[in-house]
Amino acid sequence: MQKKYAVKMPNKLKCKILRDSHNAKLFSLIIILVVIGEFLVLCGFAQAEDGYRLWLRYDLITEAEKLSAYKTAFIAINMEGNSPTLNTARKELSNGLAGLLGTRLAFVQAITKHGVIVVGTPQSSPMIAALNLQKKLHAAGEEGFIIHSMNANGKKCTVIAAQNDIGVLYGVFHFLRLLQTRQDINVLSIISTPKIKLRLLNHWDNLDGSVERGYAGTSLWDWHKLPDYISPRYKDYARANASIGINGTVLTNVNANAMVLTARYLEKVAALAEVFRPYGLKVYLTARFSAPVEIGGLPTADPLDAQVRAWWRHKADEIYRFIPDFGGFLVKANSEGQPGPQNYGRTHAEGANLLAEAVAPHGGVVMWRAFVYDNNMPEDRAKQAYNEFKPLDGKYRNNVLIQVKNGPIDFQPREPFHPLFGVMPRTPLMMEFQITQEYLGFATHLVYLAPLFKEVLDADTYAHGEGSLVANVIDGKLDQHTLSGIAGVSNIGDDRNWCGHPFAQANWFAFGRLAWDHRQTAEIIADDWLRMTFTNNEKFIAPAQSMLLASREITVNYMTPLGLHHLMGWSHHYGPGPWIDQGRADWTSVYYHRADSLGIGFNRSPSGSDAVGQYFFPVRQKFGDLATCPEPYLLWFHHVPWQHKMKSGRTLWEELCFKYYSGVDSVRAMRKTWETLAGMIDDERFSHVQALLKIQEQEAVWWRNACLLYFQTFSKLPIPQEYEKPDRTLEYYMQLKFPYAPGI
Amino acid sequence: MQKKYAVKMPNKLKCKILRDSHNAKLFSLIIILVVIGEFLVLCGFAQAEDGYRLWLRYDLITEAEKLSAYKTAFIAINMEGNSPTLNTARKELSNGLAGLLGTRLAFVQAITKHGVIVVGTPQSSPMIAALNLQKKLHAAGEEGFIIHSMNANGKKCTVIAAQNDIGVLYGVFHFLRLLQTRQDINVLSIISTPKIKLRLLNHWDNLDGSVERGYAGTSLWDWHKLPDYISPRYKDYARANASIGINGTVLTNVNANAMVLTARYLEKVAALAEVFRPYGLKVYLTARFSAPVEIGGLPTADPLDAQVRAWWRHKADEIYRFIPDFGGFLVKANSEGQPGPQNYGRTHAEGANLLAEAVAPHGGVVMWRAFVYDNNMPEDRAKQAYNEFKPLDGKYRNNVLIQVKNGPIDFQPREPFHPLFGVMPRTPLMMEFQITQEYLGFATHLVYLAPLFKEVLDADTYAHGEGSLVANVIDGKLDQHTLSGIAGVSNIGDDRNWCGHPFAQANWFAFGRLAWDHRQTAEIIADDWLRMTFTNNEKFIAPAQSMLLASREITVNYMTPLGLHHLMGWSHHYGPGPWIDQGRADWTSVYYHRADSLGIGFNRSPSGSDAVGQYFFPVRQKFGDLATCPEPYLLWFHHVPWQHKMKSGRTLWEELCFKYYSGVDSVRAMRKTWETLAGMIDDERFSHVQALLKIQEQEAVWWRNACLLYFQTFSKLPIPQEYEKPDRTLEYYMQLKFPYAPGI
Repeated sequence: MQKKYAVKMPNKLKCKILRDSHNAKLFSLIIILVVIGEFLVLCGFAQAEDGYRLWLRYDLITEAEKLSAYKTAFIAINMEGNSPTLNTARKELSNGLAGLLGTRLAFVQAITKHGVIVVGTPQSSPMIAALNLQKKLHAAGEEGFIIHSMNANGKKCTVIAAQNDIGVLYGVFHFLRLLQTRQDINVLSIISTPKIKLRLLNHWDNLDGSVERGYAGTSLWDWHKLPDYISPRYKDYARANASIGINGTVLTNVNANAMVLTARYLEKVAALAEVFRPYGLKVYLTARFSAPVEIGGLPTADPLDAQVRAWWRHKADEIYRFIPDFGGFLVKANSEGQPGPQNYGRTHAEGANLLAEAVAPHGGVVMWRAFVYDNNMPEDRAKQAYNEFKPLDGKYRNNVLIQVKNGPIDFQPREPFHPLFGVMPRTPLMMEFQITQEYLGFATHLVYLAPLFKEVLDADTYAHGEGSLVANVIDGKLDQHTLSGIAGVSNIGDDRNWCGHPFAQANWFAFGRLAWDHRQTAEIIADDWLRMTFTNNEKFIAPAQSMLLASREITVNYMTPLGLHHLMGWSHHYGPGPWIDQGRADWTSVYYHRADSLGIGFNRSPSGSDAVGQYFFPVRQKFGDLATCPEPYLLWFHHVPWQHKMKSGRTLWEELCFKYYSGVDSVRAMRKTWETLAGMIDDERFSHVQALLKIQEQEAVWWRNACLLYFQTFSKLPIPQEYEKPDRTLEYYMQLKFPYAPGI
Repeated sequence: MQKKYAVKMPNKLKCKILRDSHNAKLFSLIIILVVIGEFLVLCGFAQAEDGYRLWLRYDLITEAEKLSAYKTAFIAINMEGNSPTLNTARKELSNGLAGLLGTRLAFVQAITKHGVIVVGTPQSSPMIAALNLQKKLHAAGEEGFIIHSMNANGKKCTVIAAQNDIGVLYGVFHFLRLLQTRQDINVLSIISTPKIKLRLLNHWDNLDGSVERGYAGTSLWDWHKLPDYISPRYKDYARANASIGINGTVLTNVNANAMVLTARYLEKVAALAEVFRPYGLKVYLTARFSAPVEIGGLPTADPLDAQVRAWWRHKADEIYRFIPDFGGFLVKANSEGQPGPQNYGRTHAEGANLLAEAVAPHGGVVMWRAFVYDNNMPEDRAKQAYNEFKPLDGKYRNNVLIQVKNGPIDFQPREPFHPLFGVMPRTPLMMEFQITQEYLGFATHLVYLAPLFKEVLDADTYAHGEGSLVANVIDGKLDQHTLSGIAGVSNIGDDRNWCGHPFAQANWFAFGRLAWDHRQTAEIIADDWLRMTFTNNEKFIAPAQSMLLASREITVNYMTPLGLHHLMGWSHHYGPGPWIDQGRADWTSVYYHRADSLGIGFNRSPSGSDAVGQYFFPVRQKFGDLATCPEPYLLWFHHVPWQHKMKSGRTLWEELCFKYYSGVDSVRAMRKTWETLAGMIDDERFSHVQALLKIQEQEAVWWRNACLLYFQTFSKLPIPQEYEKPDRTLEYYMQLKFPYAPGI
């Protein structure tokens, strides 16, 4: 690095100056490149590529043709209006283009030349108002936007317009993305509107700064120094969310602490809301159901108690005095020890309506989680949410959403879609995805989650016959709900690169993109993210994209293939623990894999727990019959003999070995692929990923060996000759202890 | 910002080019400045001035005269040799000069012109060997260096030389500092040698990533990802330490965890040692005395048990296989619940010698802490360390140091020097300072600690009569010890700016500088730090320096004036808690202030606990007599009537009020001063400090009101009319709870 610049710069300078002293532009660009490089080298501590900028990088476009094409197409900006959100959009557009094009576009009042970018709403911009875009803007909806190439005053211009200011900001980010990904921009005709109304991150952040299941440092929220010290990261966080259309954030853990509802903390929450507001990001809080007792001094939290109802109403009024646009409450009740209405013999509906009534006057919502299972487990845990919630359909206030995890257990590498989707037509159901990789290798495994998200969203519930997709349950289309929502459990912490693993940023990005429009493909989203985050060099994109797209299936293979689930280490969930058999039964592994001398798997068919009975026909039949059950879900629904013949012709045991070994082989292949990409991106992020892939391989081998050696004690069958022998004993793996694994 | 650059740049470029196309150098500089600015703006997320670079900033020198003077004086570098440390020094020098001078100096083989910088050791550099520097190099010692302006081959050159590679690196940092602080460099004649051999940071970092008394994020050590992932911060950390002469770091908390001594963790420690090695930074670990039982499976940890001795010997051998240059152990034993030799009826000496014997063959040392006090408190806590350790003088192996806190209690805003200094002539005593502000406002109060450090170092023990300074006890001079050491409890965490408060970096810097040479003044060190960290603009330096120098006394005034101590909140130590009277007596506040209707203060005179008796004559007399006791220590040594006349003519109560109120007023004055500095430094760090000063004022008022209202319940005297009335009641302050205060 240093040498390169040290030598080049002086020469370049001199000769350039002597030769083309009028070609100032080209000249300045070369200087910019050289000097920026030199500058980076000179900062004693390199302001290195540490991933902090996420996908919002506006570095100079290096492809000469593209650059000149863009610079011809865009010569100036016309943007009136002066709201916090419009000013934010203006700054973003100006900075973004200045970075990408290497020159800062002028702001013009009138359109007198080709190439003006016209930005705003009919209210903010006379120009927009005059362009007669009502129809298109109506189609774009409340938060949507249009980006159109059109003529104004006989001049070719590009219009970024929306009904509301926030749509303009979304449109600006979309427009900049077109340039970041080097797309053609001459004939643009984009109408973009979010399919889901509430697009939220759920932070499982505690008031002490720890993050439950967080693997990227501690909480972003510096409660101790709030409200007086406002970290610059708060704004950067809001900006990143706005760039992908996320419009809400739940700041606190679902295992809730009532203290956040006290005035001292509400003042801190208000300070965050203030920073987020221009970016269209609303704050929500988790409500601890017993708060009236813990901070209200009441003898009870019974939802039907008049004092309790009054307390919540006053608390809501107080919150809205601090935060006029407060979004509402997220609640985990009567689950895993959290208090709830059942403590008082009331239903989840009665509990949810208590809070809904309190926030309703202010336009707030209540998101009530369906992730519940009884401490005494009368039933297959997979069935309990359905059993508790289905009967309550129709009993909720209209500002209540039920937040359902993608699958019936708990964010496993692969689960069938949750049986609640489609069975509560009178209640808006929210999707809860987990972006943080609690069960997918923490922040050291490269796992792109868009394929997992898509697999669930595209699943067909058959609720109203074929084509009743999960996606249309949660976007409200299937049962005509105007209120709709989707939540992603955040993987964001105060690590410099936000998400720990440089590639984990892709999952934050993908969640936002899919929350906005679930029809987008995992491929497109991966392509966009790679180009925006690393480079447009096709030699990098193609192999990196195939790594991303394959990574989730690879992880399923080395962790929990063929429908296996919940095999991880106890409590911290780090690494494999198929042998876990102590403590609460449905927190053990043996409860789920049921391995014995005959076979392995959880019989949820009609001859077993009949969890399949919770699905609509014909899904229940397909899953319920060993012959028709898709092999990726086989051991989820069936207890299968070790000698069972699989479609591959292998026996179940052989197939299990095959999957675990191919999982490890694929990680090794990923490492090889990554090595070939050296030099195509910055060394810092390259070597960071390189180191993490090494850890991923070690842990994939750990998973494979530990699981196969353990299951072998039941199958009594050999690991086929062709595979490398495990280099450790089962006893070795079983005695490993990790008291300081992160994330709890 | 943007606008400024947006307007300026194009114009500058164009006109410049048309006018002086041959004046390439000046031109390139202007471009560099403009473009760097533009570049910073263009990075979507500003690579802002976030403090990450610490004092190691090599930005272009903007004072034209200085710049040209330096560029004339230094035109090339002559540096042979090729060790990791020399390569590090070469890169530092080249990058540093490239940044400061704006051009990268060439490396030359011979001295044919004036202005060559000649760098190396007699072994690495024939040039150095030929310059006949033996005497000077001998004077510089093992780790020291010389920087001399001299003639070689009749050419004026600057020599940076040392006996060993590490001295060269230290010399390079010192040389760069001369330029960073804009000093004259034409006639340099510097011989610098560290006065103390072991200059260590103590990290109170736990294996779960938490940092005891840490207020700057979590631990830098990512144990979970080590040894495979090496964070770039590890190198930056080592580099920062080398730049101020720190040569060792204890990675783990003195409240120790034996697990760090297991192979799995030693592999991680070795990976860190590998990164630190080129910077001359050795790693040390804390040894849990009961490790032989906890990880060794032995029935006892009795230091005289043969198996235990063998276990520690083998453990030491194992550690040195992982880390050949391992520094040794730091031990907290039989203190605050930590296990130790007394559990087996043995002495501290027998415990220390056990570990010393194990590391001796490898050249390791044992640092045994004197911070002990009995759980049953037979005695004034201030006296116990002396009572336990003095009798053991001479009983320690020669590779044992006793690490003594600066004062007899625990890092209070002001304590008299520890009575152990000077009374153990046959044992090397180490100084333990606390850099992290456990008792000085955490990371939200601006408190420059060099004056506190100096106050203790310059104190006269009279051990061998007048002039027996504490500094000469710990540097070994007073009793001719070759082994000497000083430790600072680190204030470093994974916060982006390392220390939380932008000004807290000054305390890390000052500790290193004083560890190297305790004769340096707090003023010079503050001046250097400000120039290196912020700017050489005199308009900024003068007021900022006076803030720094006054800040510690200001904090004493609003927290614990006139010798008061240990008044802080229980457990977390956040804020005032003079009313704390529950739990272990010597962990309460009332134990220390002893306020009653007659007066306030702890009688440690001969009529009281006679702690003064532990000091040499005449110190004991001066402290012991109410008439001669310096007022800053008054209530430390005496129980004083409320009506006692102070030197000011005020009564004690009036003086107490005066001190508390002037403390708050001074913080307000600091805030005002800071406001006048707006625009002289970057907005990011300016507004960060601005926000923290606001918090500091609020908390200073909190301390003042809480303490005076509480003490008033004893004095029954009014707060003088001229002062603003406390705006809250004592009851209000007493009910405040901070369950999530940081640092535990």
